Amino acid sequence: MAEEFPMTGGDGPNSYANNSNAAAKAADGAKAMLVAAIFENLDIETLQSRPTTFRIADLGCSVGPNTFIQVDNIIDAVSQKYHKKSKVQSAGELPEFQVYFSDLVSNDFNYLFATLPRDRQYFTAGVPGSFHGRLFPEASLNFVYSAYALHWLSKIPDELRDINSPAFNKGRILYGNAPYEVGQAYSAQYAKDIKSFFHARGQELAPGGLMVLLIPGRPHGTLPAQNSLAPYFQPLESTLADMLNEGLLSEDKFDSFNLPVYCPSVEELRALIEENGCFDILTLESIGQVPFSLPSAQGCRAGTESILRKHLGDEIIEPLFDRYSKNKNIAGSASLVHDDRMAVGFFVLVKRKVL
Amino acid sequence: MAEEFPMTGGDGPNSYANNSNAAAKAADGAKAMLVAAIFENLDIETLQSRPTTFRIADLGCSVGPNTFIQVDNIIDAVSQKYHKKSKVQSAGELPEFQVYFSDLVSNDFNYLFATLPRDRQYFTAGVPGSFHGRLFPEASLNFVYSAYALHWLSKIPDELRDINSPAFNKGRILYGNAPYEVGQAYSAQYAKDIKSFFHARGQELAPGGLMVLLIPGRPHGTLPAQNSLAPYFQPLESTLADMLNEGLLSEDKFDSFNLPVYCPSVEELRALIEENGCFDILTLESIGQVPFSLPSAQGCRAGTESILRKHLGDEIIEPLFDRYSKNKNIAGSASLVHDDRMAVGFFVLVKRKVL
Repeated sequence: MAEEFPMTGGDGPNSYANNSNAAAKAADGAKAMLVAAIFENLDIETLQSRPTTFRIADLGCSVGPNTFIQVDNIIDAVSQKYHKKSKVQSAGELPEFQVYFSDLVSNDFNYLFATLPRDRQYFTAGVPGSFHGRLFPEASLNFVYSAYALHWLSKIPDELRDINSPAFNKGRILYGNAPYEVGQAYSAQYAKDIKSFFHARGQELAPGGLMVLLIPGRPHGTLPAQNSLAPYFQPLESTLADMLNEGLLSEDKFDSFNLPVYCPSVEELRALIEENGCFDILTLESIGQVPFSLPSAQGCRAGTESILRKHLGDEIIEPLFDRYSKNKNIAGSASLVHDDRMAVGFFVLVKRKVL
Repeated sequence: MAEEFPMTGGDGPNSYANNSNAAAKAADGAKAMLVAAIFENLDIETLQSRPTTFRIADLGCSVGPNTFIQVDNIIDAVSQKYHKKSKVQSAGELPEFQVYFSDLVSNDFNYLFATLPRDRQYFTAGVPGSFHGRLFPEASLNFVYSAYALHWLSKIPDELRDINSPAFNKGRILYGNAPYEVGQAYSAQYAKDIKSFFHARGQELAPGGLMVLLIPGRPHGTLPAQNSLAPYFQPLESTLADMLNEGLLSEDKFDSFNLPVYCPSVEELRALIEENGCFDILTLESIGQVPFSLPSAQGCRAGTESILRKHLGDEIIEPLFDRYSKNKNIAGSASLVHDDRMAVGFFVLVKRKVL
């Protein structure tokens, strides 16, 4: 059974809605690539005859506004492609758009629905469930988008918590600077999850359908332990370590807590997609380091509160983030982030083969 | 702008989830008709070629479990129809099912999603919005179901609150025993809403698609004022009147509060559907009085809390339902309900014409 770690819902100070600037900036930087991807690669001829519905899914959408902005970008680009075609042919009517906003069951869909843009030009649906499995009927989607969500693993590898395993991850919450076996355990889980993801999407995307993924990755030729997202979570780890030292957290709990995130190399990702066989890889490249600073207490809390609650208990949250906000590492550790280049973003564009 | 009055969400003692037995009984009584409707009238030949998705929408689904039960009934019946056909032809593979659970934006979709049956055999989506407007792409649905939801109007007719109108509804919260003009104002709003409903569904249902509606109605030849759902809400009205008399509610507020519900006659409904022109009426009949008793304080609250909060203020809720629960009318007034035969249920089966 996969675990669920949604972003914090609602619109409070600790919510994802109010703490997703980094994701917004990163996605915004990829907008031009997204628009070009649609212009150059969308075959509107392969769509079914009228009445045509063009179905878009954002997987791991969390709540707005980022997902609403990117959906508008996608629809604008698809519409322009249709308009361009209509100059050549006589019938150039736009399809109707249906947008599926999908995230884990525990995502705050009530908030998502309440904040939908009032002037939206599409039909809406919310789809609860894990993108590591099937979510949609066969060949029913024309465009899939997922931004900075695929680094979340479906579960924490068991061996990280097994004191008898060489991958026992003592004293860390991630695999940065960890023994080889720890990185391998993460990498193996990632491979399993990405295979499941592509297997499901291969069934759901209509032939000729496009998928754009924005994924945090690591530079060519580096080992997992060297580029691990760990610096991003370093203030969280050091705050937890402080609480351990003060006796506010048991060693057992600290050692058994690991964050289920992983960032692959381009080669790793390419091999996994090719193994699936249903997709032509049109683009798979680093779009460079995304400028970012360490997360504030609120920013970190928006992304990790649910998993922390689950593994360390409800009572840890307030004291933890109270300490976190006073953590001296946050202000002075921008260089840490650049040492470990977690912020390399991958732009992935694949097309469902017409078999 | 239409108003929104959702059922009370979550699973607390006042929630719809725990107070929807009456609706469950009524819908259960119609199960045999629902199954027969599908068996006798579903042309699976008109569905698109494989891969086929059979799309079902429950409009005004509220939260489970009623909607889950009826969706299972629908899928079972459609599947049996497919299996029956496969004995004759060679290819009898089942389509994939996609179920849209739809209700107002303010419905508790988080609770709905969290309580979805784990062993469900369909893809799920939640669709927020009013069924008085478009919710789905053109010709994208194969089966629409709506149970005991269409008596809710999109708004309270303005003239009921206009002291200078002959339809000013002084001293009542509904149109039972009201002047002719009050019933007419309700009837006119209902006609407008039902026309909007059928106009939207005419666009959304694929040719040959079926729609089953369970609607509270009134007996042939009766006037609105005679059969008004009023007895069902009589304990609420008398409790509000008590609070008026005790000075806990102003006369202005009491007089301006009206429930946005209406039940039509068969003739009224038939004329509205025929006017639309897109549907063949296959069944439109009374399925008799549904045995029911007056709602408990919790049952009444589950259905009316949001509209009461909006029009009378948050502070009224607790004292109102505290008094309601002690209202002597509830225990002794079963005869009231039978005098006003609100509990006549209509079973409506229409088929989208293949134009």
